[in-house]
Formats: sequence, structure tokens, C-alpha cells
Amino acid sequence: MAGKPKCVLAYSGGLDTSVILVWLIEKGFDVICYCANVGQLKEDFDKVREKALKCGASKVYIEDLREEFVKDYVFWAVKANAQYEGRYLLGTSLARPVIAKRQVEIAQKEGAKWLSHGATGKGNDQVRFELCAQALDAAIQTLAPWRETEFIERFKGRQDLLDYAAAHNIQVEATKKASYSVDENLYHTSYESGMLEDPMVPPLKEMFKMTVDPEDAPDKAEKVRIDFEEGVPVKVTNHDDGTVKTEPLELFLYLNELAGKHGVGRIDIVENRFVGIKSRGVYETPGGQILRVAHMDLEGLCVDREVLRLKEGHQLEFSRLCYNGFWFAPEMELTKASIDFTQRRVAGGVELSLYKGNVTVLGRESPYSLYSADLASMEIEGGGAAFDYVPMDAQGFIRINAVRLRAYNALERTFNK
Amino acid sequence: MAGKPKCVLAYSGGLDTSVILVWLIEKGFDVICYCANVGQLKEDFDKVREKALKCGASKVYIEDLREEFVKDYVFWAVKANAQYEGRYLLGTSLARPVIAKRQVEIAQKEGAKWLSHGATGKGNDQVRFELCAQALDAAIQTLAPWRETEFIERFKGRQDLLDYAAAHNIQVEATKKASYSVDENLYHTSYESGMLEDPMVPPLKEMFKMTVDPEDAPDKAEKVRIDFEEGVPVKVTNHDDGTVKTEPLELFLYLNELAGKHGVGRIDIVENRFVGIKSRGVYETPGGQILRVAHMDLEGLCVDREVLRLKEGHQLEFSRLCYNGFWFAPEMELTKASIDFTQRRVAGGVELSLYKGNVTVLGRESPYSLYSADLASMEIEGGGAAFDYVPMDAQGFIRINAVRLRAYNALERTFNK
Amino acid sequence: MAGKPKCVLAYSGGLDTSVILVWLIEKGFDVICYCANVGQLKEDFDKVREKALKCGASKVYIEDLREEFVKDYVFWAVKANAQYEGRYLLGTSLARPVIAKRQVEIAQKEGAKWLSHGATGKGNDQVRFELCAQALDAAIQTLAPWRETEFIERFKGRQDLLDYAAAHNIQVEATKKASYSVDENLYHTSYESGMLEDPMVPPLKEMFKMTVDPEDAPDKAEKVRIDFEEGVPVKVTNHDDGTVKTEPLELFLYLNELAGKHGVGRIDIVENRFVGIKSRGVYETPGGQILRVAHMDLEGLCVDREVLRLKEGHQLEFSRLCYNGFWFAPEMELTKASIDFTQRRVAGGVELSLYKGNVTVLGRESPYSLYSADLASMEIEGGGAAFDYVPMDAQGFIRINAVRLRAYNALERTFNK
Amino acid sequence: MAGKPKCVLAYSGGLDTSVILVWLIEKGFDVICYCANVGQLKEDFDKVREKALKCGASKVYIEDLREEFVKDYVFWAVKANAQYEGRYLLGTSLARPVIAKRQVEIAQKEGAKWLSHGATGKGNDQVRFELCAQALDAAIQTLAPWRETEFIERFKGRQDLLDYAAAHNIQVEATKKASYSVDENLYHTSYESGMLEDPMVPPLKEMFKMTVDPEDAPDKAEKVRIDFEEGVPVKVTNHDDGTVKTEPLELFLYLNELAGKHGVGRIDIVENRFVGIKSRGVYETPGGQILRVAHMDLEGLCVDREVLRLKEGHQLEFSRLCYNGFWFAPEMELTKASIDFTQRRVAGGVELSLYKGNVTVLGRESPYSLYSADLASMEIEGGGAAFDYVPMDAQGFIRINAVRLRAYNALERTFNK
Repeated sequence: MAGKPKCVLAYSGGLDTSVILVWLIEKGFDVICYCANVGQLKEDFDKVREKALKCGASKVYIEDLREEFVKDYVFWAVKANAQYEGRYLLGTSLARPVIAKRQVEIAQKEGAKWLSHGATGKGNDQVRFELCAQALDAAIQTLAPWRETEFIERFKGRQDLLDYAAAHNIQVEATKKASYSVDENLYHTSYESGMLEDPMVPPLKEMFKMTVDPEDAPDKAEKVRIDFEEGVPVKVTNHDDGTVKTEPLELFLYLNELAGKHGVGRIDIVENRFVGIKSRGVYETPGGQILRVAHMDLEGLCVDREVLRLKEGHQLEFSRLCYNGFWFAPEMELTKASIDFTQRRVAGGVELSLYKGNVTVLGRESPYSLYSADLASMEIEGGGAAFDYVPMDAQGFIRINAVRLRAYNALERTFNK
Repeated sequence: MAGKPKCVLAYSGGLDTSVILVWLIEKGFDVICYCANVGQLKEDFDKVREKALKCGASKVYIEDLREEFVKDYVFWAVKANAQYEGRYLLGTSLARPVIAKRQVEIAQKEGAKWLSHGATGKGNDQVRFELCAQALDAAIQTLAPWRETEFIERFKGRQDLLDYAAAHNIQVEATKKASYSVDENLYHTSYESGMLEDPMVPPLKEMFKMTVDPEDAPDKAEKVRIDFEEGVPVKVTNHDDGTVKTEPLELFLYLNELAGKHGVGRIDIVENRFVGIKSRGVYETPGGQILRVAHMDLEGLCVDREVLRLKEGHQLEFSRLCYNGFWFAPEMELTKASIDFTQRRVAGGVELSLYKGNVTVLGRESPYSLYSADLASMEIEGGGAAFDYVPMDAQGFIRINAVRLRAYNALERTFNK
Repeated sequence: MAGKPKCVLAYSGGLDTSVILVWLIEKGFDVICYCANVGQLKEDFDKVREKALKCGASKVYIEDLREEFVKDYVFWAVKANAQYEGRYLLGTSLARPVIAKRQVEIAQKEGAKWLSHGATGKGNDQVRFELCAQALDAAIQTLAPWRETEFIERFKGRQDLLDYAAAHNIQVEATKKASYSVDENLYHTSYESGMLEDPMVPPLKEMFKMTVDPEDAPDKAEKVRIDFEEGVPVKVTNHDDGTVKTEPLELFLYLNELAGKHGVGRIDIVENRFVGIKSRGVYETPGGQILRVAHMDLEGLCVDREVLRLKEGHQLEFSRLCYNGFWFAPEMELTKASIDFTQRRVAGGVELSLYKGNVTVLGRESPYSLYSADLASMEIEGGGAAFDYVPMDAQGFIRINAVRLRAYNALERTFNK
Repeated sequence: MAGKPKCVLAYSGGLDTSVILVWLIEKGFDVICYCANVGQLKEDFDKVREKALKCGASKVYIEDLREEFVKDYVFWAVKANAQYEGRYLLGTSLARPVIAKRQVEIAQKEGAKWLSHGATGKGNDQVRFELCAQALDAAIQTLAPWRETEFIERFKGRQDLLDYAAAHNIQVEATKKASYSVDENLYHTSYESGMLEDPMVPPLKEMFKMTVDPEDAPDKAEKVRIDFEEGVPVKVTNHDDGTVKTEPLELFLYLNELAGKHGVGRIDIVENRFVGIKSRGVYETPGGQILRVAHMDLEGLCVDREVLRLKEGHQLEFSRLCYNGFWFAPEMELTKASIDFTQRRVAGGVELSLYKGNVTVLGRESPYSLYSADLASMEIEGGGAAFDYVPMDAQGFIRINAVRLRAYNALERTFNK
């Protein structure tokens, strides 16, 4: 195989990437397959390896990135309260950089000058994979078959892929093509395309993989406590059965399990892709939704008002950068540094109840609480000896805040609006 | 009564404002009582009037502000997707300016130079009432007894108020003091103080007035459709029983009823008051929560991505200004003008399901949709003939976006981070 | 010529676009030349027309866009205080949309389906021209020869262009290629490339076209007054010689003349192109610099503090959108609407002195002034009777603003940072 | 003196603070005078000490804070490119926290529970002094005589102060009261009040202390180079006479000298005070102006575009917080941390020319330059081998950026706006 250019293909074992694998070999590449385990459900990685080799891959990497994904990506989203366009928890977006990073590392190790993937030419994932790869190693290029004229013209529909598979001895699952497409990782599962392209058609009940329908969830609420340090969850305690989890990956998977059981974390939105297209997506992010609620609640207790105000900006920035694929960008480094600074004292515990799709905060406490019951109290004699609040001061506060309002409105009246 | 300075008191009929009413008369004021109907539940306004007169008020205004409140305040919050600190829907904040505005109008009509209210010296409401009043008429001053040394020293606890009431023949409800305080209007009910001052203590089940506990909500989901024009709801249709509402106030009250029945719209947070104090509040905003979900969903369909990005800033600004009492401020005028511009084409219908605390979007449609199924489709041959999307273009898009990432990361590597 | 596809070429009469013109004809296009007059200095438009026809253009449009440019583009920059990356006044960026708009109109009138231009593949101008064109008419496509492989491979250097010109009878000015490139319009002249690519090399003294070197400017300052209405200049008065100008174009050209004479408006920067490249540019924007100083000064007098705060955001947004070519974008429409709202009362006069590169404000006045000498006065007895400022109020204002600082710093001390 | 409450008074030696000193003693305080040397011109600190003691101070602290001021305050402004409302370089604002910090330290050392100052009740300085003091030690209170009813009623005009001085043997300079007030430190001098309260009246030529009038500046430009490391100036080199300065304080004072000689750094503005009042100020900030120009220029070379975009927000925030007195606030800590992160690689040299009010950049270079002449070059064959820029990519970049513009404008046309 000497002399052939090496290409590291992000390989899932499905029809598309199997066809791409064979096609790349046909085009003269020495193809190394790479399959990242970011927590997809029930994936049989041995089968993936076997299929890749059968299709002609010269080598196969199956990489367990789950712990790295939770610690270095998902927990950043938690610290940031990341949310794109007010609703999407960024499940796919977060997984792309960890996958791309390892793909580049494999290419560097193998001396490969090419990467490839099965992402389409209209979506966000091509952008995320490739911006990450180019940031990490500008000398490695990406070949995206779904953007190549030759490939697109050859494979105009699913039947062309099936014919090619048959002709090249690529094994195909007997399953009918789903009426929508799915992306899975331990943080979330997304559903889009096909029947979901009509924004008036609701998702199918049987579609969801991580969560039950709230209507099918237990009739009894379950109570958990999540403890945080420096903005990151360090312990989950189930008050009902006494379960305790403290390792990042284990803890997160356990939250997924709990939230999934109680139907927590589904959304259905029309969002804006970086390539300028509106698209409709249905998502379930069970553990992520619990963590978001708990983390925001704790920040309310521990973080100064004006720091929170600035952090609202950081949250928007982090979310947009993550969504658009700018994970390894200088502005993301800055945004992460700013966020980290705000999390130094985000520590303590939040008590929660899970019930049929609801995550309800029951209480919160922190060694770094900036809340003072004495100070907050509306009781007549209250008065926060600690912080020395004098009600009469509020009069001056109000009157000075009104100085420019009085001036402005005087002028308004003069000029009759 | 000639010669006495007139004072318009925001009067609720409760113990505090009744004591204030008598105390103001004692201090030599001619007190005109004003009670705003902003949709408080089960308030008996005739009794309020009667009590005010019995206590010595020279005149009583009972003003039904409900429709104005819904149209000119609540619907602005809907257009803005208003939310303070990521969670609070601003129920109390929104009602203050409409109340203050009418209070100033009454003062102007009556020739009164003074306003008064029963808000404490540690809260947000004093600020909101008075900033609004000063913006609207700088010549009218506010006397806030709970900030007056003489008043505070005289009334150090509830017993002092009760003693004063007894001594001055003020009728007091037999009810024991609640273990928390409540503020009501048609948009929301808030609970704070007392037992809720401990942020680890959950609210009582029996506390809530507008919503049932999700656990007690019907076991069957109910389906509704909300239609919007220019960002404002114009029709609610109940798919289950065929009910249709189109008048703003009626429509909103109907949404409250539906959401309340399904346990929608409760939150429990630690928030930051404008006077610099963190406080814990429990809120229910049933109809508001439904409208927020529906409106944001429709914006996803009708509003350009970059306009939404700018509007995220307007939303934060609107919410902060509203919370802090700057309703009649020039920066609020600007923010409202900007928001209005974004809503010109926010029209169409959103289908929703209500179930045990959940508001789930089932579908959405709009005559002004910027979504194109053809364009969004990931199908191989898809390709939005309408908008002429060429997958190969994405390669250049990605590569140009990566130009500065490549430059930056080359430098990073040179200098070893 | 029936049957040939029509192409409207933005034509300057220079070597590059003349070669492009002939090349396009060679490629089978019916080429309509279009030369926009946006105030380039000493351009001989008759010669341009003649040359285009000689080269084979089927038609030539010479369009005087100067007044439209001043009123609908330059004056928006004035209202916005537009400035990219804190320094660049956006002279080239502002001219692109007015040029592109007319080019599209000509194409529509002529039934042309193609546009062409001579902008390079590394710059901002290709982006600006084409984003504008696509926004205005998605059915018209752009052919940019400097991005076409065939063209680029044929014309690898200036000599290839000269050889082609000789072979095709294209008349070439005898002038040697300048050691930098120039873009001119009535708002500014820019210099870049060539010798200026070394950021340590200063511009040449003889390079500048609109301004004298401050060292060569008159030794005597000149005094002018600029009057604004709704944020736009409506009158310029020269106090020294009594000149008065009131028509937008005339007024602006007169300011250019004055500023140019006094060496006002040069900058030399390294900026960031939208395509991700840093580039070095030298600019002179004489009249624009005067207007920016005067307009900002007047805003200080007439615009509320918090409106100014929000407008700082609008300024950044406007400038970035304009620089990047998003003039006909929905987010620009929103930004302009927001800016316009802030300018309703920006009216009055600003007195200025011009002297050797300096624009010094001498005074300002406005019928809508929010400034009150009484209120501002630090005099002991001062006190703004008008607005009723009570110094003692400031104590409460400060103490309430410090509430959260006290709480935060108490916590800091407890935990030793 | 045992038993008397101790008060640390910020004492300047002038009429106001001398009267305050005696008045405080009269009120029963043990007054410790504190005079901060922040680089006021020609202040005779021995005389100040002597006068304080003569007036009855129990102790006098003269503190040289100049180096701390330059390193920990002025250089932060340089890193931030700090500028309030687009023009004011924050000279007074920056000095207040360093003065307040030392005042609190003295109070702590002396066991004083009170601070006092001569700032008026309408200005920014009272706010800045007291917010800093309260943040640093909430147990220490401030007595501001110019906000005390008793004091204000006693001293209604300058004559009352003079009478009191005469009666209490306070020595008064023979000088007539200036027609404006002055605040000085090494970073700037400000002029306001009196004749300057009329915004149409220009400043007097003889008023300025740090800079000559540009008209009186040398007819020959002077060339200097400033070298930065991590965003902070580390070396100034005068190319004309070979002078080199490297120590922070010395370097800064030298820049003041150079800029002052060339008339650099004057502004005249109407600004918005934190207490809601518009006021007119004239400022000269000679060295600061040079540093701002040089630092921004260098950032253009070394800092990524999107990091600069975020930093524009940090700059606005830093400036507003500094102006309003929130130096020791949690949100300022965050803002400074964010800014510091952006400055890691802001290093290199900037060549400048100083001439009659102008600071002109002549060139810049950096070991961390992100600028590439190859990449930037518009030359036909150019093409940044290093970063691998392909002009054809720009087409895809533009077309994808236009996707949503095409969709939006199609809709616009459908609905006729």
C-alpha cells in the first residue's frame, strides 16, 4: 500500500460512511477508519471494526472519548449554561470538537494528510468538524464526499447507495430507512430531516431513545441532590434510594438515567444553522437539562448580580461559538477564561424533584452564598445588621436614579413628544 | 378640609395600607385612596372602598386596569420574551408602571402633590413605583412611610400595627398572618418572605393560587393553538372543546385558566433586587409561560438569525429595565422601538400540548416563514431550488472561516502556548 | 448579438477592468459597462465611456450616485458614529452598496443575468458587492474573474495583463504601476498593498489626495459651525469667510475641502478583513472626521446617558455589518431603525476649530439640550431648581449601590480570596 | 484626645478641606489628615502637612502613590483602551480608587471608624471614593460634609468659607477664586464648573497645565517608539535625542512631557455623570493619549479579530465601571481578568510621530504578529503559502453568507415590504 495517500475517515458503520470508505479506496486512498465512542446507545463497536476491515480499511481506531467528552466539553456547557437561540442545549455541537480532535491526532500519528467524514454539505457538522481540524492542524485537509460533484452525481438517492453497496459487497442492515435522521451521544439525541421537515408535524412517540414520554413517566416524583464545585457537578445523591455518584462520567450517565425515566429534557424547535438555513430539530438532553436547572439555580445564590449580567453575554457567546464550530478558536479561549473566572465560588448543593418532564428546584445552599436572609427580609425590624442596610437610603437611591428621567420627561413635555 | 395637602395612597384594604391611611390623615394629609384592579384574584373592591372611607379617606378610586395591563404591558413582555436573570417572567415588575401611571393621573386630576404606598424600603417595588411617578410628573412627591424614621420606630412589628388598628377602629381580618407574603395580578402571583426566606425550604403545596400542583393536574394532555399577529396573541383555540378567544383580556385570562389547570408556570429562584439584595421568590405565571414558549417558537420560524441575535440583547435589556423600574425611561422607549421592529412579521399559529407542568410545542406555521423544507432537507438531491443552495459552496465558506484560526494556531504552536 | 448572455461589468477604465471586459467578451458575454460616479477625484467619465466602447462594450452606463451616496449612506455613518475596530471610518465599505444597488438595477433593466467586477479574491470588496447583489436580486449571478482558475492562471502578473492589452488593442496609460493601490470616493481615499504591505513602512508624503500633510497646513486655525437636524448635518457655516452650505452633497464636499486644507482625517491601521486576513490600510476621510467629532459632541448634549449606552452597541453593530457587506440585510434594517430612533432630537449647532490635523470642539448648543447648567453646577448653593436635585440623596444612592459590594467583599475576606 | 472618634480626612490643603478639617474637629472628631500624591503638579506637600497640623489635625499622612497609580491603575486603562462615552480617558476616575484604598488602609491602621472628603454632593467623586471605601471595609463610614444639611446651610457661598477661615485662623492663599475648578494627577488634568458651565464657552488658552496649545507647539515633529509587553509599555525611545525610559513611572512621566510639549491629548466634552447629571468637562491627558493610540495600533497587529470584537465589549464595561466608581467590584475583577487574557501576546513596538496635537502611527512590529504580508497581498500571484488561502474559496464563503439574505429578500418582495 506504500505510496497511497492516507485518509482518516470518521466511520460509523452505517450505509453512508461504508460507501464513502469503499469509494475513497477506489479513489486511491489508504483509508484508516476511526469510530469515536461518545456514548451512542447500544452501538456495537466490534461489529463496526469488523465491517470497516471487511470494506477494506487498512486500520481501525475505536476510541472511547466518553470521559473526555463529559469533563472537557459537557461540563463547559454546564458552567456556561449553554443554550443556543434560547432553547437548544448544543448536544451535537459539543461532541464535534472532541471527535475532530482525536481524528486529527490519529492523522498526525499515522502521517495521514487527509480526513474525511459523511456530513452533508448543508449542515452544521461539516463546518464544526472542519473548523476544528483546520485550527488543530492546518496541514491536514478534509475531503467531504457529500460536497464533491462526482460523488453527488453518482449517489443521487438512497437506491444508488444500496446498489453500490450490493456491487461492492458492503453489508447493509435489513432495516428500512427511518423517516428521520438521528444523531446520538451521551449528552443528547437529535432527530431531524424526513417527516420532521414539516414544522407542523409533531415527532413520533416511539422516536425517542433517551427519555420516556412524560405521560409514561412514573406517577411519583423522585428527589435528588446535586453538589457542585467550581461550577461543575461533583456529586449526585438520590434521596429516595440513597444512590450516590461522584465520578464525572458515571455521575452524568446516572443523571441521564434519572431524567430519562422521568421524561425530562425534550425540545422541538426551528433553529438557524451557521450556513444560513433554518432547520427543524427535535432533541432530548435529559441529564443536561437537570444540570442546567441546578447550575443556574446555584449561581443565583453564589454569584454577584453584575457578574451574572456579564455572564449572560458570555453564555450567548459561548453558545454561538460552540454551535458554529469555533471550539478551538481564540475567542472561545477568551470566553472560557472569562466563564471560569465566574465559577470560582459556584459551589454547594441543589435539591431537585423530577416528575413527568418537570425539574423542580426545592432548595439550595452554598458555603459561598451571597444571600442573607437578614438582609433580604421584608420584616419591619429586619435590617441585615451584617450588611448594614438602611431603608431610608433607598429614597436617595431612587431619587438620584430618577434625575435623568425627570430631565428627559420635562423635555418630552416641552416638545409634545 | 381646605388647605390640607392632598395625598393619593395606593390602597389595598389590608392592614398595612389601612394603618398608613390613618397615619397619613393623622399627619395632616387629605388622603385619596386608589386601588388598582390588575386582576388580583377574588378581591372584593366594594369592601376595599368601604373600608377606605371608614378609615377616613376623602375619596376612593377603584380602577379597572386589566385590559390596559394586558395590552400595553403583558403583551410587551410577550414580544420581548422577557425574562429576568434567565428565569423570572417579571410579573410584579410589569404591573407596577400601569399602577403608578394611573396613580399619577389621579393626583394630577385631584391636584394632589403627594403620592404614598405601602412598599418596604428594601424591595424593588418602591423603586418601580417612584421611578415611574417621577418620570411621569416630577412635581409630585412620594411619601413612603416604611422609609420614614418616625413610622418605622412606631411600627416595629405586626403587633404594633394591630394595636394601632384597634386604637383607630381599623377593621382587621381575623386571619393569622401568613407565613409568607403574596403579590397578585392577572399575570402572576409571587410568594416571598417569611418561611421562604430560607432558600432550602420548599414552598408549601397549598400556597399556590393560580396553578395546581403538576401532580394534581389532569392525566390527559389538552391541545391548544395560539395565533399571533405582529408578535402579539390574537386568537386561542382549544382543540379539545372548541373554545375560541380573541379579545386580549379574555384570551389571556383563558390561557391562565388552561395553564393553571395543567400546573404550568411555577418557578422558585434566588434573584437579585435592584437595591443590591439577593432575595428568594416563588412565582406562578401560567398564561405568561405558555405565551413565552409559543412566541419564541414562532420567532424561530419567522425571524432572521441575525435579527434574533440582536433581539437576544434587546430581551436582556428590556427585562433588566422592566425589573428595575425604568418603564418610562428613554432607554426603554428605544428598546421597545427596536423590539417592535423585529415583530412586524411575527405572525402565524403554534400548536401546543399542556400536560402536568409541561408546555410542549407540537407544530408551527406562518405566512412569513423563512423556513424552507427544500432548503433545509439533508436529502441527497435536496437543494432548495428556491434559494439556490450549492453544497460545494460550503467548502469555501468553511475554509475562509478557518483562515484566522489557521493563522492563530500556527502562532500558538510556534510559541508553545 | 442576440442570444449572448448579458453581463453588467463594474468598469473603471483601468487596466484590470479593461482586460476583464475584453476577456468576458471573449468568453461569449454581451458586456454592458457601468461606471459609478461616487465622487472619485478628477475621473474623466467621458474617456471611460469611450474606452469601454472601444474595448467592445455593447453599452455604457455612467451614473452619478454622489447625492444618493451622501444622503443614504454617508449620513447613516454620521448618525451611527460609524467606526470599524475603533478607528476606520468605513469609506470603502459605505460606497460598495450604493454601487452594487445601481448595478443590479441596470441588470434588471437590461435583462442581464450576470454581474462582474474586478475585485480580488482576498479582499472585502468582492464580499460587499456580491452580498448586496444577492440580497437585492437572487436571480442575478456574479462572475468574479479574479476568483476564476482560468483567468488567474492566464494573468499571473501585471506583465500578462499588459501583454493581453497590447494584443487586444486596449489602450494603457503610460504611467508606471503605482507602488500601492488606491480606492477613491467622495467620503475617503484608501491606500493599501505594495509598499504598504510592510506595516513598518510609513505612507509616502506625496501619496495623499484629499488632505495636505498637517505640517503643510495653514498656520492659522479656521472656525466653522455645523448645524444638525435629526442627527444629520443641515448647515455648515465658515465663521472666517462667511461661507454657508446647506445642500447635502455641496455641504459634504465643502467639509472635505476645509478638512483637506487643514490636514484632517488621516489614519494608518492594521485591520481585520471579513475573509479572515489582517491587512494594513492608510485612509483619509476629511469631511467624515469633522462630522464624526461634531455629531458625537452634539449627542453628548442631547441624548440621554442610557440611550447613549445602548447606542454604543448599535454603533459597533452598524460598523461591523457595513464593513462586512451586510448593508441590505435584515439585521442592518433593525440596526438602522434603532439608530434612527435615537436621533429624533439630535439637533443644534457645534462650533469647531480646524488646525493642522486637529478638529477641536469650541462649543455646542441645542434646542433639545438635556444639559442644565443649574443642575450641573458644583457651586455650593447650586441645585437645579428645575430638576430638584438634593445632594443628600446621593448618600442613599451610594450606600444602596454599595450593598452588594459590601456583601461580596465580606465573603472575600472570609475565604481569603 | 482619648475617646474622640477618629476620622481620616482626604486633605488637599485648599480652602474647602481646611474648613472641613476645622469643622470636623469642632464636631468632636480626632482628625487625621491624609494627602495622596498622585502626581499633582507643583504641589508643596510640606506646606500641606504644616497647614493641616496648624489647623488642628492630630496626625498627617503624605503618601506617594504615583508608582502604584501608574502600574495598577493607569496601565489597566492602557490595556483596556479605556474611554468613557467614546471620548473621556477617565483621568479622575482612575485616581479615585488608589486614593480611597490608601485612605481605608490608614483608617484601619489608626483604628478610625470614619472617613471624610471634600467632594460635592452632585459629582462623581463622592460616589467613587465611597463605593471603593465601602467595598474595602464596610465597617468604616464616610462623613461627606457637602451632603450634610448643617454644613451646607452654614456654608452657602465662598464668602462663608472665607469668613470661617478668618475666624478660625485658617491661612488662605491670596489668589482669587478661579473661574473654573481643576483636578490634577499625573494622568490628566480636568477643568470644569464656573465659566465652563456654559457649553458654548470655549476653555481659556491659559487654563491648561500639562499641554501647550497645539498652535504653540514646535514646528518640527518628534519621533518616538513605544515597546509593549503583555499590553503594558516597557520602553519609550526618543529617536530624535536618543532618550530611553523603562521604569513605569519614569516612562509615563516622560510621555507626559513629550505629549505636553506637542499639545497632545486635549478634549472638551459634555458627559454623563453617574448621578444622572450631564456635565461639561475639559481634559488634558497627554501621555495617556499617546499610549492609547500606540496600544490600539499594536493590538491590531497581534490580536485576533474576534477577540478584538469581544474586547470592544470589555472596553466599554471597564470604562463604565471605572467611571462609576466600581473599581473594587466583582464585575470589575471579572472584566480585568478577561482583559488580561487578551493581552498575553500584545507585545512589540510602535513608531510614532508627535506634531502639534497629532499622534501619528508610522509603523508597528511584533514577535506575535498575526499579520502576514503574503496572505494580505492583493498581488495576482500572492497567496499566503503559509496559510494556504485559495481565492476561489471566497465564492463559497460569500454565497453561503448570502443564503439567509436571499431567503429574507424573497419574502420581502412577496409581501411588498
